[in-house]
Amino acid sequence: MPKSLEEFREYRERMNAKILAWENLDIKRFFALDSAVYREGKLPPKTKELLGLVASVVLRCDDCVLYHLMRCGEEGVTDEEFHETMSVALIVGGSILIPHLRQAAEIWERIQSGKKADGTP
Amino acid sequence: MPKSLEEFREYRERMNAKILAWENLDIKRFFALDSAVYREGKLPPKTKELLGLVASVVLRCDDCVLYHLMRCGEEGVTDEEFHETMSVALIVGGSILIPHLRQAAEIWERIQSGKKADGTP
Amino acid sequence: MPKSLEEFREYRERMNAKILAWENLDIKRFFALDSAVYREGKLPPKTKELLGLVASVVLRCDDCVLYHLMRCGEEGVTDEEFHETMSVALIVGGSILIPHLRQAAEIWERIQSGKKADGTP
Amino acid sequence: MPKSLEEFREYRERMNAKILAWENLDIKRFFALDSAVYREGKLPPKTKELLGLVASVVLRCDDCVLYHLMRCGEEGVTDEEFHETMSVALIVGGSILIPHLRQAAEIWERIQSGKKADGTP
Amino acid sequence: MPKSLEEFREYRERMNAKILAWENLDIKRFFALDSAVYREGKLPPKTKELLGLVASVVLRCDDCVLYHLMRCGEEGVTDEEFHETMSVALIVGGSILIPHLRQAAEIWERIQSGKKADGTP
Amino acid sequence: MPKSLEEFREYRERMNAKILAWENLDIKRFFALDSAVYREGKLPPKTKELLGLVASVVLRCDDCVLYHLMRCGEEGVTDEEFHETMSVALIVGGSILIPHLRQAAEIWERIQSGKKADGTP
Repeated sequence: MPKSLEEFREYRERMNAKILAWENLDIKRFFALDSAVYREGKLPPKTKELLGLVASVVLRCDDCVLYHLMRCGEEGVTDEEFHETMSVALIVGGSILIPHLRQAAEIWERIQSGKKADGTP
Repeated sequence: MPKSLEEFREYRERMNAKILAWENLDIKRFFALDSAVYREGKLPPKTKELLGLVASVVLRCDDCVLYHLMRCGEEGVTDEEFHETMSVALIVGGSILIPHLRQAAEIWERIQSGKKADGTP
Repeated sequence: MPKSLEEFREYRERMNAKILAWENLDIKRFFALDSAVYREGKLPPKTKELLGLVASVVLRCDDCVLYHLMRCGEEGVTDEEFHETMSVALIVGGSILIPHLRQAAEIWERIQSGKKADGTP
Repeated sequence: MPKSLEEFREYRERMNAKILAWENLDIKRFFALDSAVYREGKLPPKTKELLGLVASVVLRCDDCVLYHLMRCGEEGVTDEEFHETMSVALIVGGSILIPHLRQAAEIWERIQSGKKADGTP
Repeated sequence: MPKSLEEFREYRERMNAKILAWENLDIKRFFALDSAVYREGKLPPKTKELLGLVASVVLRCDDCVLYHLMRCGEEGVTDEEFHETMSVALIVGGSILIPHLRQAAEIWERIQSGKKADGTP
Repeated sequence: MPKSLEEFREYRERMNAKILAWENLDIKRFFALDSAVYREGKLPPKTKELLGLVASVVLRCDDCVLYHLMRCGEEGVTDEEFHETMSVALIVGGSILIPHLRQAAEIWERIQSGKKADGTP
């Protein structure tokens, strides 16, 4: 069962801040690059988030999936688009992805129900 | 420490039901295929479950391991057969499998002690 | 250095035909599913091919990359869109992807120069 | 296109001999263990080779697949058993395994046609 | 959020003892080898632990990372050496390692603060 | 059988130049970071190259292994240090690494014999 969105967000921000306080320029630069690569280019941010999502699912990184699902919610990805992205991932990566698909399904439900409740992503 | 068998079973069934309620035919077909492939063929279900188990261990998918261990218990896999399957996995996949081996050992123990207590798998 | 597009296409078709001639229904169904999942849905085929491409790159499957690059060429993916997809893959999957990026760059060049020469994908 | 069985066998033996000539006891011990684990136990060598094969396919190690296919041929694995093992691997590991499935299909064909020709594995 | 060092240590020792009680010589030998390989050779134990750490991070095995961090603490690895090792891992393995980097950062902090408090590793 | 060192070097440089000519700042920055991270820090370049080598072996990237072996040769890594690094990798990552170990053994031999012949790395 996945952690709550709030718990994840808080832990992610707190630990990222600690890592960025290390005196290690290479790690700081990598984190900057990791933000830059999802910004609008010829591909819109929504497509880039779907790319990040599918990559995270096939590599089976639950925290990465959680993060990209929150971003997909913000970019207005629909339920059907989420399902189709999951179906591509599942065929590419096989049944070992099913536990990650279950987590993604639960998290997406929470994100979408949060949106419906208060009208904001 | 792994989750309880009951907790896993309930979460798996509840989330699978939600995913199968999505209007996405490809995912439904994949789930059907994922059941079909372990059915009796020229290879007996027991051998197929051992194949599913070793694949799940080397790919380090704890929930997949848990599921196949429950099925192996139902198919009458013995302790020695479980140990030999784990030894093949361990040599193929190396020491990064050891944490998954610890989980598998604990889950197998629970499955086998459940069996001895009430006579059913 | 990657194999030629023609050599790949011929080997892929010849061996797929042999595999589909096996009397194994599960494998046939999986191959059918693997075609179906990239068809137009709510997401257009071009986006689905980019999803397939990024998944193939981060999982480091050169033949899968080659196949999706040919399909991306057919769907009218531009150089910039190819580069941005590769940049997402590279940040997600790290420097171990660089050899696969080199192959993808060479194959994309061949596909695009083939197109410019004779006007067809 | 996979290398020839003879080429593989020769390269494997020549390089293994060089590695075993290194003064490194841990590597020698690992190689010994890698042979021991497939020997007859409660599970017969044929089942252990199928376990080694499925693990090699899902981990996408073509040389490991080639080796276990040769051993499977020696243990009398039938075409149908080979196909069923491949179908389990394919569902577990997804479409990124298809290029490896093509190689395995070609190698298995060579092994089996070699057998029919001269009556030995 | 990672488990506590004590909880990990206790679970690891208890389950390893159970596994080593199995009548399976291959697994026993592998466990012996897994200890032997980090012992002093031409490379000092500290370098070997850094090798084990970087391998565990890029393979995304949180329990392996936790174990090697405890050993790195015992071998006197400094904060800067830990950071540089993490930066190599991050560039090699990409952003999917970031959740594991966050866990490693928190565990390292605990190990180092434990050391400062009572003067022992 | 691995490609020749010269062939690899030429292909790598030619394709990297093409990739760096793309108008994609994120990829350029990643390549810069990939060079920076192996530079002298608190850890000497030799240790960093051993870290890069072990990461490349366990992730089974033959071209990455080849590159780091050339750099290890330049940094004066001895045969024994190479063997010990390989032994850590092998125990961590298991027998699926053996084909990559064979390639690494052959490449290392070429690098070392090249050195003895003309006195330069």
